[in-house]
Amino acid sequence: MKHLLSIHDLDRAAIERICDRAASFAEVGDREIKKVPALRGRTVLNLFYEASTRTRSSFELAAKRLSADVVNFAASGSSVEKGESLKDTVLTLSSHKPDAIVIRTPWAGSADLVSGWTDASIVNAGDGKREHPTQALLDVYTLRRRLGSLDGRRIWIVGDVLHSRVARSNILAFAKMGAQVTVCGPPTLLPRDIEDALPCAVSYTLAGIEEADVIYALRMQNERMHDSYVPSLREYAAQYQINARRLDPQQIVMHPGPVNRGVELSGEVVDSPQAVITMQVEAGVVVRMAVLYEVLAGSRAPQPPEVAPVPSTQQGVAS
Amino acid sequence: MKHLLSIHDLDRAAIERICDRAASFAEVGDREIKKVPALRGRTVLNLFYEASTRTRSSFELAAKRLSADVVNFAASGSSVEKGESLKDTVLTLSSHKPDAIVIRTPWAGSADLVSGWTDASIVNAGDGKREHPTQALLDVYTLRRRLGSLDGRRIWIVGDVLHSRVARSNILAFAKMGAQVTVCGPPTLLPRDIEDALPCAVSYTLAGIEEADVIYALRMQNERMHDSYVPSLREYAAQYQINARRLDPQQIVMHPGPVNRGVELSGEVVDSPQAVITMQVEAGVVVRMAVLYEVLAGSRAPQPPEVAPVPSTQQGVAS
Amino acid sequence: MKHLLSIHDLDRAAIERICDRAASFAEVGDREIKKVPALRGRTVLNLFYEASTRTRSSFELAAKRLSADVVNFAASGSSVEKGESLKDTVLTLSSHKPDAIVIRTPWAGSADLVSGWTDASIVNAGDGKREHPTQALLDVYTLRRRLGSLDGRRIWIVGDVLHSRVARSNILAFAKMGAQVTVCGPPTLLPRDIEDALPCAVSYTLAGIEEADVIYALRMQNERMHDSYVPSLREYAAQYQINARRLDPQQIVMHPGPVNRGVELSGEVVDSPQAVITMQVEAGVVVRMAVLYEVLAGSRAPQPPEVAPVPSTQQGVAS
Repeated sequence: MKHLLSIHDLDRAAIERICDRAASFAEVGDREIKKVPALRGRTVLNLFYEASTRTRSSFELAAKRLSADVVNFAASGSSVEKGESLKDTVLTLSSHKPDAIVIRTPWAGSADLVSGWTDASIVNAGDGKREHPTQALLDVYTLRRRLGSLDGRRIWIVGDVLHSRVARSNILAFAKMGAQVTVCGPPTLLPRDIEDALPCAVSYTLAGIEEADVIYALRMQNERMHDSYVPSLREYAAQYQINARRLDPQQIVMHPGPVNRGVELSGEVVDSPQAVITMQVEAGVVVRMAVLYEVLAGSRAPQPPEVAPVPSTQQGVAS
Repeated sequence: MKHLLSIHDLDRAAIERICDRAASFAEVGDREIKKVPALRGRTVLNLFYEASTRTRSSFELAAKRLSADVVNFAASGSSVEKGESLKDTVLTLSSHKPDAIVIRTPWAGSADLVSGWTDASIVNAGDGKREHPTQALLDVYTLRRRLGSLDGRRIWIVGDVLHSRVARSNILAFAKMGAQVTVCGPPTLLPRDIEDALPCAVSYTLAGIEEADVIYALRMQNERMHDSYVPSLREYAAQYQINARRLDPQQIVMHPGPVNRGVELSGEVVDSPQAVITMQVEAGVVVRMAVLYEVLAGSRAPQPPEVAPVPSTQQGVAS
Repeated sequence: MKHLLSIHDLDRAAIERICDRAASFAEVGDREIKKVPALRGRTVLNLFYEASTRTRSSFELAAKRLSADVVNFAASGSSVEKGESLKDTVLTLSSHKPDAIVIRTPWAGSADLVSGWTDASIVNAGDGKREHPTQALLDVYTLRRRLGSLDGRRIWIVGDVLHSRVARSNILAFAKMGAQVTVCGPPTLLPRDIEDALPCAVSYTLAGIEEADVIYALRMQNERMHDSYVPSLREYAAQYQINARRLDPQQIVMHPGPVNRGVELSGEVVDSPQAVITMQVEAGVVVRMAVLYEVLAGSRAPQPPEVAPVPSTQQGVAS
């Protein structure tokens, strides 16, 4: 696998392989020396056109734990401010011969475009409203740890599906893993005819959510709501907030973060043991290690990953 | 020692142990290969909510010279701009399992709070007006190098004590090391009843400063002076500036930087051999190495630190 | 060679030595492990007071591929925002004992000044309108690869010479390598009497450009045009744009980037095989590796550089 642009590119076997490898890296993460030498001498470039906490830092850590070098590249403070185009920036940076470029932009489809401009492996870390495949992979990984298998599970994705790249990637990934997906939200926040475009059912109310094994609440992204009539956060919370009253004790609650406490989820639900939000974030580093391993070392190394930690002898030490 | 949150947590023996270890690292810093393998495979996360030159870069260098991986995290350009709370940011980042988080914020007490939210070791790099313990440690280290011992020494801390986390940490540290501390400044820039709260005497004028062995001038922080009547910089300089006329040739002058030349200190004093400001900054990296070593390797390794530099053989080389 | 401040400091032999070493590093860059251990345990500090894409990232990569540690330092987000002077910032950072400081500022002559304030090797990455020597070196390197030798070649530098540090460094470097340089542009964008100050001829029109072996178009830097009457971009393009109509098929086209497509160069010229702009950027990392090697390891190691890649054995692994 050369790139990770979209969940469309992955079949169930590939998703399972990535999750298995992530699990093997999780064992290393529990040791004192958390590094493996798999990508020594390789360079990973983080090219972020949008602010990000967890995604950027978890990719950076993932690369470093595989012993790769990392160069961060934020749009601000660079020639992007002089008006340089995405293409020129990518051509410039790719002429430095990075092995992989992890890219986040506000423009749908940009990761695909970029993959045509460079020899580097491209990992899509979010391209506008379109996809965020590593988020979907870490959500599958988290559910596999909690449920064993997703086969036949019912997953409701609740909230602003229209503006959510997470929703799109997760519908695809959950369905590939055998789950039945329902999207739920106000009509103005659901894409028209989504049930024809993606493998999911649609509900405009929470009625029926008691059947769900998993409730995946999306973030209300005020900063993206320019193009449609949307309810106020208070109206939204009144109808769609997942709170203790609406939740069955055996249901699992997920959220891609950062949570607006009191909007998508009540505070008590966020802090309850049913919420696996922390497990999701924890999965971020190991799943992204597995993705970088897959695109940079996977094809050449069909054998199981080298998970022996960096030896602790003082011979051969480094930055 | 799991965290370094406040000078209150350290007794004299701990301060001396950290200074001794810093001294051992200083020898390494004079060699061509300045690295030691002590924290190989560990991750240090720098989480900075305030601008910083010397503190951020010296922690970054300290971690790298101990062979740890470093991930920098500035509040701007991250989800903090989306309104994420300190707690959510820390939970997110700590789920990446960093070994230590070095944190600077504008909020008093934040380092203590953060230490309750994560398994990582927390190092306070400045929390609002409250404390800046590594600054105090590097100041003690500098004075020990210059004076041998602080026992019985008289130290005057002059300037804006009210807004200064440096003053608070240094009063505590100097007193623990046996010095007698006097704080001096205009009444509006001294905390009310400070002599009851902290081990120091108070003076509103420079009268008597000729008794001081050490004069520690604080930075006039215009950016913090919102909440009290304060003198203009010119009025301040007229009454409190340390200049050649007010200085005895054997007195030592310190300043935490950056200096406002012509305000707290005259330019000629800054450039005189009595000023040890450069020694203070130079101490920053080795003292922070010693602190990171203390919280990450100290308890498990009571033996002297491994200061053998990284071997220069070409076997085993790295980023 | 302790510093690289200006092309004035280099004779032809030094330029050739740097280019030869860059070529040896280019071979390493084609392998999977792109690193060499030459600067293991050394620290390179990038101090950038101006936005930059290619220069900052190529210096960062160059240092990492030589196995040095890198600390980035942007003026924003640091004490510079508190009004700290360049001198105080440099003194602070140099007291951390970096081996080299790579510096870019908007102030002519700043690199020279800085070299007097610190023991570190200084590499000028652009000082205002004055010089940008590593750009000139990578341009010489690129032309040597394409033409073999610059002796007797005719090179036209076209555009805003007045505000261009690239022009100044390149005129010097091309002349030292035996080329004949002509600068061309509107009178308001050429320094008065430039032909007396620098080894070049002057032309105010493109008449005669058919004699050029190489056409080097400069970027129109709107952000710098405050101090003279300048033509609009449309007027400029009408008279000075290098487009297919004005170009002979055997001429080589260069540009320091980022290109304003349709201004200095037509889009079709940028994308034509005559343009070596991508080769220029590609040269950035290896030439900067050679420069860092020269200032940090060159004098002590007159033998050819150690270009054996980092061994891939798992012994000795790192960040």
